[in-house]
Amino acid sequence: MALASVENDVLGDALKRVQGEIDSVFDAFLPVPHDTSARLVEAMRYAAMGGGKRVRPLLLVSTAELYGVDRTAALCAAAAVEAIHVYSLIHDDLPCMDDDDLRHGKPTVHKVYDDATAVLAGDALHALAFEILADSQTSADPFVRSELIATLGKASGMGGMAGGQMMDMVADEEGVEYDLRTITRLQQLKTGALLAASVEMGAILGKVAPEGRAHLRAYSRDIGLAFQIADDLLDVEGDADKAGKALRKDDEQGKQTFVTLMGVDKAREQARALVDQAVAHLSSHGSEADTLRALARFIVERDR
Amino acid sequence: MALASVENDVLGDALKRVQGEIDSVFDAFLPVPHDTSARLVEAMRYAAMGGGKRVRPLLLVSTAELYGVDRTAALCAAAAVEAIHVYSLIHDDLPCMDDDDLRHGKPTVHKVYDDATAVLAGDALHALAFEILADSQTSADPFVRSELIATLGKASGMGGMAGGQMMDMVADEEGVEYDLRTITRLQQLKTGALLAASVEMGAILGKVAPEGRAHLRAYSRDIGLAFQIADDLLDVEGDADKAGKALRKDDEQGKQTFVTLMGVDKAREQARALVDQAVAHLSSHGSEADTLRALARFIVERDR
Repeated sequence: MALASVENDVLGDALKRVQGEIDSVFDAFLPVPHDTSARLVEAMRYAAMGGGKRVRPLLLVSTAELYGVDRTAALCAAAAVEAIHVYSLIHDDLPCMDDDDLRHGKPTVHKVYDDATAVLAGDALHALAFEILADSQTSADPFVRSELIATLGKASGMGGMAGGQMMDMVADEEGVEYDLRTITRLQQLKTGALLAASVEMGAILGKVAPEGRAHLRAYSRDIGLAFQIADDLLDVEGDADKAGKALRKDDEQGKQTFVTLMGVDKAREQARALVDQAVAHLSSHGSEADTLRALARFIVERDR
Repeated sequence: MALASVENDVLGDALKRVQGEIDSVFDAFLPVPHDTSARLVEAMRYAAMGGGKRVRPLLLVSTAELYGVDRTAALCAAAAVEAIHVYSLIHDDLPCMDDDDLRHGKPTVHKVYDDATAVLAGDALHALAFEILADSQTSADPFVRSELIATLGKASGMGGMAGGQMMDMVADEEGVEYDLRTITRLQQLKTGALLAASVEMGAILGKVAPEGRAHLRAYSRDIGLAFQIADDLLDVEGDADKAGKALRKDDEQGKQTFVTLMGVDKAREQARALVDQAVAHLSSHGSEADTLRALARFIVERDR
């Protein structure tokens, strides 16, 4: 199913805009120093700039837009989320983790530099995320800054991304076979938590009270799962050149995924149903939520 | 020079107390989950609990004490700093970094688990640090929380610990020979920044205005350098059993250190002079600063 072309254009423009803006934020936060720590910052810039779909930043900025948040502030928070995402990719690609040579169509950080620099560049991007969120540029209100930090910390740590990653590794190494419920939980932690945090952080910047965020949470939970099912489908059906990374890895590793558990057709059906449900959760919003709607559809139809 | 035995006892008691308290904070923040991410939390607990001198926590808690800060709050912030310190040790010990098998007299995390788990446990402790600081238990005042986070982020990232670590790696790999000025800068970043952040964060909790912190900054800058010189001396003269880690590594690697540049005697003299200077910076405080004074002396006289 191709995207309706108007929706496609709107989203394409929005993604392109945010890609340029996020690169600018990183450029500003990552000046290369005049000492031998330059290699660290160069590796951080290499990993963080000029690549990636920037789905998380667009989710955050588009949610913030619903509530009239200043765009510069939203972009800072968005860069923080992206810094976490990028650090996790650098570490995941390490030889001792997934051992990948290609990311966003470019050699991975440890291939261009070395493993130690990759570990360190990931660590420094991790710290940068929280430095950015603690900066008054992100919000003049320290309560908002603190809430953003708590949300991102939780989503990326042991109760979120890192926890999901561990569950995934245990399955790979110990050949544990998860059922659909456990795979769902794993993916909610590994991928869903950071996507959900992006939406949540947009709402926090908009000073939406927790009870006013329920529909956004429902939206992000649905797109989070849809995103992972789409990733599993991409691994089976995608074109590695377009994806800019190695594919068919799940099958080679005999890994349990939504696709192995449900089959290709059922998985695609499920992803689309989740997206419809996600879009339905936005019914209280008017056209100002069109980017979030288009983004939900893009998540399952993307080829990279 | 042996410590005056009274001072020694006071410090010994203070360290012992804070060691127990930090273990309790980690125990509370690290409940082992009932799923396959349990391995991650077990690895975090293994690395974070039951070992380490806890110099940074004691620095933070003792500074906070000068200003009558609630001890529970100070211990949370102290655990956050220690979580950063521990994550950096886990990553530094990785085969692709320093490749160390022993830490605090125990096998390192990647030896007990595996490299991937070690990377992830470090990452999750890194996130935990900021989660703890964003928690209202650490301070009810969100401005204080935000300032703590900005301070810790800066001290641990590219402009602090990670930057210093990179400078160190470049020297090892590319055989760059640093002069004393560059070694000093490297160590201020690699070790000094986090020690200084510990003191700074104690003062932030005490709501001391930046201009009221100048003497504390001077104190921590001096003990930071003294700490590193003592580490270099320990590497040359120490007992690996007491230190609980491999020694004589600098010499084997032909590494430039304070000791190779200054010689053993001059380095020891310099460390002691720095400690005297550090203690002198505390002259505006009375006996309530005795732990900070004793800690400064301990830093150069320690055997581990």
